[in-house]
Amino acid sequence: MLKLRINPDRMLAAFNELAQVGATSDGGVNRPTFSEAHLAARRWFREQIEKAGLEFRADGAGNHSATLALSGASRGASAVEEPAKTLLLGSHLDSVPNGGRFDGALGVIAAFEVLRTIKEAGIQLKVDLEAIDFTDEEGTLVGLLGSAALAGRLHSDILQNPRGGRGALLEGMRRAGLSDESMLSAMRPKESLAGYLELHIEQGKRLERAGLHVGVVSAIVGIWSYRLSFIGRADHAGTTTMGDRLDASLGASEFTLAARDIVVNDFRDCVVNIGNMEFSPGAFNIVPAQVDVSLEFRSADEEKFKRLDSLLLAHAQEAANRFNLALKVESLGKHSPALMDDHVRDAFAGACDDLGLNYISLPSGAGHDGQSFDGICPVGMIFVPSRDGASHSAREFTAWEDCVNGANVLLQTVLRLAT
Amino acid sequence: MLKLRINPDRMLAAFNELAQVGATSDGGVNRPTFSEAHLAARRWFREQIEKAGLEFRADGAGNHSATLALSGASRGASAVEEPAKTLLLGSHLDSVPNGGRFDGALGVIAAFEVLRTIKEAGIQLKVDLEAIDFTDEEGTLVGLLGSAALAGRLHSDILQNPRGGRGALLEGMRRAGLSDESMLSAMRPKESLAGYLELHIEQGKRLERAGLHVGVVSAIVGIWSYRLSFIGRADHAGTTTMGDRLDASLGASEFTLAARDIVVNDFRDCVVNIGNMEFSPGAFNIVPAQVDVSLEFRSADEEKFKRLDSLLLAHAQEAANRFNLALKVESLGKHSPALMDDHVRDAFAGACDDLGLNYISLPSGAGHDGQSFDGICPVGMIFVPSRDGASHSAREFTAWEDCVNGANVLLQTVLRLAT
Repeated sequence: MLKLRINPDRMLAAFNELAQVGATSDGGVNRPTFSEAHLAARRWFREQIEKAGLEFRADGAGNHSATLALSGASRGASAVEEPAKTLLLGSHLDSVPNGGRFDGALGVIAAFEVLRTIKEAGIQLKVDLEAIDFTDEEGTLVGLLGSAALAGRLHSDILQNPRGGRGALLEGMRRAGLSDESMLSAMRPKESLAGYLELHIEQGKRLERAGLHVGVVSAIVGIWSYRLSFIGRADHAGTTTMGDRLDASLGASEFTLAARDIVVNDFRDCVVNIGNMEFSPGAFNIVPAQVDVSLEFRSADEEKFKRLDSLLLAHAQEAANRFNLALKVESLGKHSPALMDDHVRDAFAGACDDLGLNYISLPSGAGHDGQSFDGICPVGMIFVPSRDGASHSAREFTAWEDCVNGANVLLQTVLRLAT
Repeated sequence: MLKLRINPDRMLAAFNELAQVGATSDGGVNRPTFSEAHLAARRWFREQIEKAGLEFRADGAGNHSATLALSGASRGASAVEEPAKTLLLGSHLDSVPNGGRFDGALGVIAAFEVLRTIKEAGIQLKVDLEAIDFTDEEGTLVGLLGSAALAGRLHSDILQNPRGGRGALLEGMRRAGLSDESMLSAMRPKESLAGYLELHIEQGKRLERAGLHVGVVSAIVGIWSYRLSFIGRADHAGTTTMGDRLDASLGASEFTLAARDIVVNDFRDCVVNIGNMEFSPGAFNIVPAQVDVSLEFRSADEEKFKRLDSLLLAHAQEAANRFNLALKVESLGKHSPALMDDHVRDAFAGACDDLGLNYISLPSGAGHDGQSFDGICPVGMIFVPSRDGASHSAREFTAWEDCVNGANVLLQTVLRLAT
C-alpha cells in the first residue's frame, strides 16, 4: 500500500472538465453558490460519481458526495455489529464571483480520485470513505453552510439573517430544490464521523517563497463579519452647504482607513477587509443618506479576536460621531479559530516523508469547512503552493505536479489512518 | 392686467394629482427619467393640456409642452410677416430616485397655470407662449438632456458616454420611443426663442432663514462631474497579508475625505459630493480590485472651477499613489456657470414689487435647465422658500401660499416682458 499512487492523468482530465463549468474568459470560474454554473458543476460531479461506479449521496443542505462503503465482508468481520464510521474527504465546488479554478475544486477532485484509487486497488478500510462537495464554503449566502449543516452547527437564526441576504438565500434554495427545513435535517450524529481531511491550495505565498511542497495546517483562522451601516440624511448635493450635510460616505471612508491602520499597526498576524460598500440612494447629485459597509476580519487567536473586535467597533462609532452620523451594527457571523488534530497532522507528515516531499506546519489564513468539525471529529488539512499567492481571482494557479503531490499525500494519509 | 392672478385652486388640484404619479409611501415621488412613473406623469400632463384646450407639442428629445400661439389676428397685424418667437416657461417632471413632490413639478404646473390664465383672460401677447417639461433635468441618464437638445447643445458623443451608462440610456429611449437621431433633431433655431423663465423651489435655507417670499436668481452654478476609478487587485482577503494588498477601497476612502477637506477649507462657496461608490467584485472575502467613485462639484465662478478641478484630480492621484493603485479619470460633463439676464431679473423684481412680495437676489446652488440657454436667449429664474432647505428627498416642502406667489410673479413677469 505504501507504493499506491493516484492516477494523475485521470485526475487531470476530471479537473480540466470541471474548470469548463462556469469558465470565465480570463481563465477563472464564476460559480457562486446556487448559480446556474454552480448547479451545473454539481450535476457534472454526480455524473462522474455514477460513471466511476461509486455511490452518489446528496443531503438536505445540498452537499454532494461520492461514497465508498466498507464492504459487507469487512463489516461482517468485525466482532461487534456497530455502524461503520465515515471518514470525510472534501472541499467545495462553489467559487467567489469571478474566482479561480483551483480553490475548492482541487480538493473535491483529489478526494474523488482517492476514492477511485482505493476502490480500484480493492483495499479494505476500517471506515466508510466519502468525497464530499460542501455547499457555500465561500459564503455567497451564509459561509460554510453545508459543513455547518452536516456538523449540526447550523441554526434557523443563521438562515434568517444570512450575510448574502435572506431574499438571495430563499431564491438560491428554491433553485437548488432545498429549504430551511431540509438544511437543518442534514446534521449527522457526531458518532458517525471518523474525521475530516482536506487538500486545498495555500492561497498565500509562504510555500512558494520557501520552496516547499506541502503545508500541514496547524489551525484555521476564525472569521468575524459585520454589516456596519453609517446613516446620515439625503439632501440636494448642490444647495445644501457642506456644513449642513449628514454625509454617510465620510463615516464609511474614515472607518475604512482606520480599520486598516489598527490591524497594520497593532495586529500584525490578523487581517481585515472592507469588501463592499453600498450607497443609498447612490446618485451623483444626492448626499449619501446611508452607506452599508461589508466588514470581515480574521485571527487564529480567540483573545486577539476580542480585542480587535472591540477596537474596530469603537472606531466605527467614533467615525460616525465625528460626522454626526448614526451607526447600525449587524453581526453576520463569528467563526472561531479551529486547531487541527495532532494525530492527523502526524499522519500527514509521515505521508510526506514516505513520498519524499518537504513540508512545514503553518496556520490557514482562509476559513475552511474543517472548522465546522472543530470539537466534533478529528480534522486535518494540507496546502499545496499557490503561484504568487494569488487566489479568489482568475490568476489563481498551482503547478499540476504540486496538485498530484497533494492528492498522493491525501491518499497515503487515508491509508495510514484507516487501515 | 396688473390685477391678473393665476387660479390657486385649479393649480393646487393639478399639483396634487401629479404628486400621485410615482408617489412613494413617505410622501415623495420616485420618477427617474423614462421610468414607468415618469412616462405616466408625462401622459398625465398631455391629458391636462388637451383638456385645457391648449395645443400639445412633443419633440424628439421627449420634451412635452403646452403651447399658446399668438393668434392669427395679432400675427396678421404685424407690419412685416416674420415668424413669432417663443417664450418658454418650464421645468421638469422627472425626479431623482425617491425625490420630493416640488422639485421640477412646481415649475411645470405653474407654467401651465400661467398659460391657462392668459388664455382665459384673452390677452394677446407679442410672442408664442410655451409651458415645457424638459427631459432628464436630474441627470439620471445625461443631465439637462431635454433643454440641451432644444438649445442645440447636445452632441452625439454625450449620448455615447452618458453618466447613467449607455445601456440605461438606450433602454430608456426605447421605452419612451426615442433614439439618438430624434434627440439630436430636437434643436430649435436660436432666432425662434424669446427667452426662458423658470419658477423652482430654492432647495436651500436662505429664503426661509431670511423670511423672504422670493429669490431672484443671479446665476446658476456650473456642475462638473467625473467617474474616478481606483484600481488595485482582487486577492483573497484571508491569505493575503495587509502589506501585499492593492486595496482599491483605500484610495477611494482617502480621496472622499480629502475632497471634503479641500472644499470646506479653501472653497467655501463651492460644494462637492461623492454620491456613490461601486466596489468590484464586491464580496466580503475579496480585496476590492476596483472602486468607481461618482464625483460632482459645483461653483458659480469659472476660475474657481478650474482651480478646484485641478486640486481634486491631483488629490485623487495622490490617494491612488499612496496605496499603489492606478487611477482612471473619466469626465462626465462640464456645465459652466450661467448668468441670468439683467432685463429679466428687473422684470421679476418689478413683478414682486407690484405683488407686494419681498425678495433678494441669490445664486442657485443647483443646476437647472436655464443654463442650457446661456448665450442662446435671455434666461431668468425665481425661487420660492424650501422648508428646512430639504430637497431631493421626501421631506421637500414649500408652503402652498409661496407656490402661488411664485406662479403670480411668473405670470406678471410674462405680461411685463411680452405685452
